[in-house]
Amino acid sequence: MRTFNARLAAIEPSAIRAIHDRKRETSIDLGMGQPTLRPDIEPFEVALQWVRQHGSPYAPPGGLHELRESIAHIYGGYHNPSAANVAVLNGSQEGIYLAIKALLDPQTDEVLLTNPTYPSYHRCCDLEGVRWRSVALAAQDGFAIRADSLLNALTPSTRLIILGSPGNPTASVMDEREVRRLAYALLDRKGPPTWIAVDEVYRELTFTGKPYPSLLDYYPHAIALQSLSKSCALTGLRIGFFIGHASAVEAVVRAHALMVLNVNMFAQRVALEIVRDPQRLRAQHAWYVGQRQVLIETAQRNGLHILEPQGSFYSMLALPQTWSSSEAAADHLLERYDVVTVPGVIFGDAGEGFLRLSWVAPPEALAEGLNRISEFCSKRPD
Amino acid sequence: MRTFNARLAAIEPSAIRAIHDRKRETSIDLGMGQPTLRPDIEPFEVALQWVRQHGSPYAPPGGLHELRESIAHIYGGYHNPSAANVAVLNGSQEGIYLAIKALLDPQTDEVLLTNPTYPSYHRCCDLEGVRWRSVALAAQDGFAIRADSLLNALTPSTRLIILGSPGNPTASVMDEREVRRLAYALLDRKGPPTWIAVDEVYRELTFTGKPYPSLLDYYPHAIALQSLSKSCALTGLRIGFFIGHASAVEAVVRAHALMVLNVNMFAQRVALEIVRDPQRLRAQHAWYVGQRQVLIETAQRNGLHILEPQGSFYSMLALPQTWSSSEAAADHLLERYDVVTVPGVIFGDAGEGFLRLSWVAPPEALAEGLNRISEFCSKRPD
Repeated sequence: MRTFNARLAAIEPSAIRAIHDRKRETSIDLGMGQPTLRPDIEPFEVALQWVRQHGSPYAPPGGLHELRESIAHIYGGYHNPSAANVAVLNGSQEGIYLAIKALLDPQTDEVLLTNPTYPSYHRCCDLEGVRWRSVALAAQDGFAIRADSLLNALTPSTRLIILGSPGNPTASVMDEREVRRLAYALLDRKGPPTWIAVDEVYRELTFTGKPYPSLLDYYPHAIALQSLSKSCALTGLRIGFFIGHASAVEAVVRAHALMVLNVNMFAQRVALEIVRDPQRLRAQHAWYVGQRQVLIETAQRNGLHILEPQGSFYSMLALPQTWSSSEAAADHLLERYDVVTVPGVIFGDAGEGFLRLSWVAPPEALAEGLNRISEFCSKRPD
Repeated sequence: MRTFNARLAAIEPSAIRAIHDRKRETSIDLGMGQPTLRPDIEPFEVALQWVRQHGSPYAPPGGLHELRESIAHIYGGYHNPSAANVAVLNGSQEGIYLAIKALLDPQTDEVLLTNPTYPSYHRCCDLEGVRWRSVALAAQDGFAIRADSLLNALTPSTRLIILGSPGNPTASVMDEREVRRLAYALLDRKGPPTWIAVDEVYRELTFTGKPYPSLLDYYPHAIALQSLSKSCALTGLRIGFFIGHASAVEAVVRAHALMVLNVNMFAQRVALEIVRDPQRLRAQHAWYVGQRQVLIETAQRNGLHILEPQGSFYSMLALPQTWSSSEAAADHLLERYDVVTVPGVIFGDAGEGFLRLSWVAPPEALAEGLNRISEFCSKRPD
């Protein structure tokens, strides 16, 4: 018997990955979590020119100063104005992991999540042996995150809340009143402060017609996880940002430096070129607006019950009552209709009865996929 | 009071980094751990062409299959012939960290190190709460790693030995007889197997005139950490490889996927282009042979006591008896002679009385730095 980390061994393999592994050549993919658009090539060309001149040296542990400064300026909000408030990491995923790793004491601290939510959050807690609980979001309320539900669920041990806004899989954006209410109530709370980490990777992809309400503007212990993956079709670049209080950034950079030293210099040069002209972060927004229109219109025409996405490129589709298991439904859709979707239940039991659809496939494929789902919904399970 | 991870907070900041932060514009740098050569640009151009055609999608969790396969072929040795024996990671540092993280149980398992050694190894143990001990290497023996010393230090709890060969800071290469003796003795041992992780990042930079003796050829529970950082002047690329038993690779990939998903696709395409023509891994070897000659001849001319490096681009310089503290000596050298070196003691107390010199500076700077060190050695401390 070889010994391995028992906590690692106990974590179930990614269900999303398992679904993707079953995808066929012919499948219509409404399951994937990455853009199908191509990235702008120019920042890569500029980065290559830099390598021609400077080679490929180590980057500083927390990232390139100018990149950190730009990100603080763009996303840092009221409380995080400078480079010391930003760590450049290997994707926002590393930011989630390091928030749990560096800021908490597994002996005493507890994490609060929502349900449904992106499964990585509790998997990272499990890996570190950190206890977590979750607050159920109501489907009838569009899976909106409500300040009061979170506040009611706090215990004296809660030291970190992890939220997604826009949420994955919910596609809901936390309302500004809720953001403020949460911030003010937490500021009034006695005892050591509770961190809130907001996964903001879909922040550039919102469709509410209002400015994005960021907790970073209202709460000094808010942390944002950012990335270029979704906004700029750069999932493979693995550039993410941890934004927050300088003391938290310092702890995260220390852990990061111990574990991986520093982040790929080429990728940071690409990122720097993008944020030097921040309009690039919104360059693909119009395409998503069009896709969302295709989604909503096709769903309406077919009588599909979807929650209209406020942000991200997902949408929750309510299954007919006849399907009590979203896993069985997704399985059936893949086997009989050759359409990939993700069962809502893998995001938490509050997601049962729903499928997560992503709507980044080409418009014709998206429409055809929705047609097939409509046909599927109109039939009873065998 | 904010709560942070207490283990993280207890780890002292990197002493090597602190020395580099004190370096001046004018300093002769014989301290740095990265090549001064430029990398071949062609693999970057090929990778950019790939991005033009394919965009920047996620890479698979364990890395590109063809890259894993090539690395297994080049470095895997007798026991690790296939892609399943290789994980592509964010530099070899992540490999060290994940060996400790994924393969051990902090409750019961213990790590064995050498002294002196690269400080990252025990810092990663400290971060994970894994106990470690170390075996002192003898300066009179050229800091050679001897199988018997390691074997004598094993306890029933020892589940992982971490070695560097070529060693940093020792520049010594483990002899083939010692490699075989260690492997055979461990194979004969009762109880669960003990992993040995060998940091092989300087493997392409050896000067013994003999083929590199890799433990991967003799011991099925050997792990090698590899990288393109040193051989190809690509420290900023952050591409490393964890090579070993498929069960260990699988555990490491699972932890890696939870923490950071996957590795930068562009960097993997660069790496793939390099390993498709493995001669590229040795392309800069001749330059290092020349540098080593400058080091040895200048040291001889100046009566400096150095251990002739068998591998890597470091060398241990024995301080005169008058200097009992290598930290004070390095400090004095920087302040009075404007030469950056690294005190031996930061690699463990067996390194006291030595300075680690790196010899990657341009030949004239290297010679001038050694002249100044010679002048320094000829004087008594104030």
